Amino acid sequence: MIKHLLSAADLDAQHATLVLDTAAELAAVSGREVKKLPTLRGRTVVNLFYEDSTRTRISFEAAAKRLSADVINFSAKGSSVSKGESLKDTALTLQAMGADAVVVRHPASGAPHRLASWVDGSVVNAGDGTHEHPTQALLDAYTMRSRLGRVAGLHVAIVGDVLHSRVARSNVLLLTTLGAKVTVVGPPTLIPVDVGPALSPDLRVSYDLDAVLPDVDVVMMLRVQRERMNDSFFPSTREYARRYGLDATRMRRLPEHAIVMHPGPMVRGMEITPEVADSARSTIVEQVANGVSVRMAVLYLLLGGK
Amino acid sequence: MIKHLLSAADLDAQHATLVLDTAAELAAVSGREVKKLPTLRGRTVVNLFYEDSTRTRISFEAAAKRLSADVINFSAKGSSVSKGESLKDTALTLQAMGADAVVVRHPASGAPHRLASWVDGSVVNAGDGTHEHPTQALLDAYTMRSRLGRVAGLHVAIVGDVLHSRVARSNVLLLTTLGAKVTVVGPPTLIPVDVGPALSPDLRVSYDLDAVLPDVDVVMMLRVQRERMNDSFFPSTREYARRYGLDATRMRRLPEHAIVMHPGPMVRGMEITPEVADSARSTIVEQVANGVSVRMAVLYLLLGGK
Amino acid sequence: MIKHLLSAADLDAQHATLVLDTAAELAAVSGREVKKLPTLRGRTVVNLFYEDSTRTRISFEAAAKRLSADVINFSAKGSSVSKGESLKDTALTLQAMGADAVVVRHPASGAPHRLASWVDGSVVNAGDGTHEHPTQALLDAYTMRSRLGRVAGLHVAIVGDVLHSRVARSNVLLLTTLGAKVTVVGPPTLIPVDVGPALSPDLRVSYDLDAVLPDVDVVMMLRVQRERMNDSFFPSTREYARRYGLDATRMRRLPEHAIVMHPGPMVRGMEITPEVADSARSTIVEQVANGVSVRMAVLYLLLGGK
Repeated sequence: MIKHLLSAADLDAQHATLVLDTAAELAAVSGREVKKLPTLRGRTVVNLFYEDSTRTRISFEAAAKRLSADVINFSAKGSSVSKGESLKDTALTLQAMGADAVVVRHPASGAPHRLASWVDGSVVNAGDGTHEHPTQALLDAYTMRSRLGRVAGLHVAIVGDVLHSRVARSNVLLLTTLGAKVTVVGPPTLIPVDVGPALSPDLRVSYDLDAVLPDVDVVMMLRVQRERMNDSFFPSTREYARRYGLDATRMRRLPEHAIVMHPGPMVRGMEITPEVADSARSTIVEQVANGVSVRMAVLYLLLGGK
Repeated sequence: MIKHLLSAADLDAQHATLVLDTAAELAAVSGREVKKLPTLRGRTVVNLFYEDSTRTRISFEAAAKRLSADVINFSAKGSSVSKGESLKDTALTLQAMGADAVVVRHPASGAPHRLASWVDGSVVNAGDGTHEHPTQALLDAYTMRSRLGRVAGLHVAIVGDVLHSRVARSNVLLLTTLGAKVTVVGPPTLIPVDVGPALSPDLRVSYDLDAVLPDVDVVMMLRVQRERMNDSFFPSTREYARRYGLDATRMRRLPEHAIVMHPGPMVRGMEITPEVADSARSTIVEQVANGVSVRMAVLYLLLGGK
Repeated sequence: MIKHLLSAADLDAQHATLVLDTAAELAAVSGREVKKLPTLRGRTVVNLFYEDSTRTRISFEAAAKRLSADVINFSAKGSSVSKGESLKDTALTLQAMGADAVVVRHPASGAPHRLASWVDGSVVNAGDGTHEHPTQALLDAYTMRSRLGRVAGLHVAIVGDVLHSRVARSNVLLLTTLGAKVTVVGPPTLIPVDVGPALSPDLRVSYDLDAVLPDVDVVMMLRVQRERMNDSFFPSTREYARRYGLDATRMRRLPEHAIVMHPGPMVRGMEITPEVADSARSTIVEQVANGVSVRMAVLYLLLGGK
């Protein structure tokens, strides 16, 4: 197994499948009766969060605790960072304190890579800037496999602000590795210019959501980052919702079996209507549950739990 | 046993007594020697706090940990809430992550009830707006029973800003259920208009603290919420302290055996003087200790620990 | 063993040596294989932090968890403190909740001493105002002994803003107790007037770093507290760095075997250059690792773990 999980590109098809299989086993074992496994007893997992993300932090915390690891939460707010401490010094501190794994969320793309060069323990990227969020991609792949039986051969539309989305980037990498076909959909200003078949034969671009929907097995809606809207990128939030939001009418264009995904937190009424979010097609709640299983698997495999 | 604890009204006399008896047993067992019980090992308790309340959060955290549960603290500050996530989505997230119990503090009255409709686990109301705080009432009843041998037949004065106090509301409900007689005392502007014998034959109203004191077994002082004072409700804080504050002179009007309670945090010199707060009649420190035992009992009974 | 650790002066040479020996044993035992010891299982350690200090809080949290204690973090930010609760009431609350040890960081010098008068459990001073930080001194002594084989007879220079430094004060007390000779070095405005041989025959004062360096075994750089600079104390930060900063050129004045210490967090480029901080002489990372072992030893000895 690899030592760190910094990018979805770190995983080839075999490793990615091993994570998904392990997550499925852990989900089966850690049911009601034996929810807590002794696997990582005595190991310390540090959640090093330079950005607020309660969901992701809690998901990793729950995963580590179910494996009996000790968890230490480190929020950069109110930390030595404000006294001028660099990421390197923080890394050396965690290293010296015996952290076996550091789960890091940072606003700067690439920060987890730098961290990995300074610590002996494993580093898990829990989201770095607009760059990557590999465990989100793994839980999404797990959810597809769980709902549709496979990932290879699926056609997945990823819709919205693809340009700024680390979720989109990690999913494109992982899903194409696993043999899915991906179409990214959004306004031209929010699609990176270098995306498309030139990057991977399995990757397409579209600006027309209605045209894409009848052909997909999965539609993954991205969170609209409101703070980036209402500027030169796009005329208005209403116009955005009209063209790229998923409502009940538009959802009917999907094939019967297709599912609707969202990484959360949702802006209901913006990129997705409550009717769609709460429909039987929606996997949003399952994604959260699967997140804990997938993160258990990642910690288990990286820390070589015996 | 009930599934949730949302209101003191959820408990009839039999259930309330079961909680108090269980708390007494747990307090006896979890002494110095065997402080940690394995009862809730593998269970996850989430503290979901939308308002700051370190005391209550720590009390629940200590209670859950003594029962060997895993505790995850979720503060709404700096959470996905600021990204537009609704209480419902937060609830579904906690649900998906496998929370066995959610302890919730929320500024909106009724929020715990809504939460309970969305999750499979147990919900414990740790204070919602000006509505209820049932575990505070349980620890107060426990303290009375511990000091005075019983709750039924006691006469309890609840003094201060009754209108805005969730502590007062939960205590009125629980104490009358357990057979105590309650008199709420305060300025007319801070007493709800619908309170009194019409609500319960065991409930009286008074605006004259000195007249009430000689007849009570328990006087429970409420925290003055300074932010609500100095406006149209009341002439001045000094006038408030003069008429409804408890000082040593006024304390002498109490019967020999009567006790003085306060839910904390106190505003010393305002509703209570240091001399009274630190006197032998004061149960303030015991109330805090009893809070841990009572919350252990609530978690134990709700989660069906075997 | 003593009950509290409030000041480095609480420890005589015998007790201080016991802490260092115990830390060495715990560091040896709690290696990779048996990292978690059951010694303090069922005990509760509260981290009561009125000032932000992620490093120190995490170090104590890691130490307590490796001994299997339950840890409750209490940050005064957003606590009942803002509702008018006094330190005494907070102390009684922690006492009532059954805290076996309270680790306290407070901006007011002497706060841990007052706390110790109100609680039954042990109190560990994790830094109070400009007063003391005894576990920092212990980990520094541990690091010297580990690198140089002894503390007695060493000559240690403590350099910088000695006046405001609790690290300096605790180190002076502990190191002279253990038989080292200490020279404090800094601009006259940042050296207390009552320091010197009059205080202890083993304590000297110098304003000339270059003159001191060739004669020391250890040079301990203090963090420059920038918020206190640029005022009447000192002409400029550049002038400070020129006279009292440690760069590679100045480091060459040290004897071959001498080591460079820093309590962290560093202001690289100010009191120490990156070249020095990352050199083989630097013990900065070891100090952090030793901090966990020393704090394990302190908690173990104070709580009488059997």
